[in-house]
Amino acid sequence: MGQPQLRPGERIDQLYSQDIQIIQSPEVFAFSLDAVLLAAFAKLPAKAKSLTVDLCAGNGAVGLFMSSKTNGQIAEVELQPRLADMARRSVALNQLDAQMTVYQGDLADVTQWLPKDSADVVTCNPPYFADLPDSQKNPNRYLAIARHEITTTLATVVATTSGLLKMNGKAYFVHRPDRLLELLQVMQANRLAPKRIRLVYPKPGKEANMVLVEAIKDGKPGGQRFLAPLTVYDATGQYTAEVGRLLYG
Amino acid sequence: MGQPQLRPGERIDQLYSQDIQIIQSPEVFAFSLDAVLLAAFAKLPAKAKSLTVDLCAGNGAVGLFMSSKTNGQIAEVELQPRLADMARRSVALNQLDAQMTVYQGDLADVTQWLPKDSADVVTCNPPYFADLPDSQKNPNRYLAIARHEITTTLATVVATTSGLLKMNGKAYFVHRPDRLLELLQVMQANRLAPKRIRLVYPKPGKEANMVLVEAIKDGKPGGQRFLAPLTVYDATGQYTAEVGRLLYG
Repeated sequence: MGQPQLRPGERIDQLYSQDIQIIQSPEVFAFSLDAVLLAAFAKLPAKAKSLTVDLCAGNGAVGLFMSSKTNGQIAEVELQPRLADMARRSVALNQLDAQMTVYQGDLADVTQWLPKDSADVVTCNPPYFADLPDSQKNPNRYLAIARHEITTTLATVVATTSGLLKMNGKAYFVHRPDRLLELLQVMQANRLAPKRIRLVYPKPGKEANMVLVEAIKDGKPGGQRFLAPLTVYDATGQYTAEVGRLLYG
Repeated sequence: MGQPQLRPGERIDQLYSQDIQIIQSPEVFAFSLDAVLLAAFAKLPAKAKSLTVDLCAGNGAVGLFMSSKTNGQIAEVELQPRLADMARRSVALNQLDAQMTVYQGDLADVTQWLPKDSADVVTCNPPYFADLPDSQKNPNRYLAIARHEITTTLATVVATTSGLLKMNGKAYFVHRPDRLLELLQVMQANRLAPKRIRLVYPKPGKEANMVLVEAIKDGKPGGQRFLAPLTVYDATGQYTAEVGRLLYG
């Protein structure tokens, strides 16, 4: 297998901790720490007969970063053809074609590819910002769709997640703390019982700017646990030991 | 004024950071860190024409600890006569009779003393545990009532809080993280918009075991903020600097 075809503006980046190479482009899509943290937070069944689905997959970062955690199949669903194409080429670049499949299309139509109640795990790093009439959006359409709820909504993403999951299957989301309560309520309205929650803080003394949530389909309601906080940078501006390990191994 | 009359088993403890003396008894009620953290978390209007109400007041710890933060009135509401009596004697012991009033009775009947929509701030350290048929309760009735929802429920406490508050008045609660989602939902159902949330962790690397919530009556929904985590003990088992200051000044 030769080098992958890179399009103009694209480059190959590496997540050293996972030995994964990933094609990205600052003008189209590049993964951020959110994807690394979500992939690390998710618990995947190791067995080969398992299915993990990543919704809002972007350039495939979350699925690629999780690939060493399971012998099962990983499906990635991405609406934007340009991003799905990058994801497919990254899957090939890492020789993961036997394990990973990229589906390009609207997640609301996901059952055209993946049956209901078939997934053991669904992960999602959804667009963070509501598409309010007065919200400032990135003039770059690729980035605007990835960040704002222009083509989907939190309610649709969560309902799709729940529909895909088997009973007792697990959902993993990363989102912003100011929408945590909304996320938890939408989960509860869709048969997903939030269980483990981890807040992510940019550095000591600052408010949380990210949150990770695990929910169980048809799980018993109540009993949420808030795990030890995850802090990204220490007081001197260096990555904390935990984040350093997630990035560099 | 002479020394207060102490009943058998009672002692006088001190919160050094606030120079407050408090009558308590291990067999009846003794304040814990929860009360100190709630009192520190609450923002009180300084002005003399203000009213702060502490519900589920116990031996009056939260109200006493907040007394230096306002020139306004502080009302304490406690169901148990034995605890309300301790609170009254502690108010006298600290010469705060002009500022503080202790009402003994059921908080559901609070409007017999305090009019609806009259409070600037309501604080509450409610019973943490649901009164499930199979839940283990303390055989000591005083402690069982303080810890379990035997004589009140979260829904009643929150509804009472909302009824007491003026529009834009602030509610401050301390509770356990496994009931945070329930607390936030009950607040929303009672015109209280949760705004600032702070999780409290016993020590580094452990799950949260307490949470502080600020809500605004008739506030705009959404936009919850998760403040920097508060950790009680450091890795060596000493109080962290912040908690040490709250306890010892």
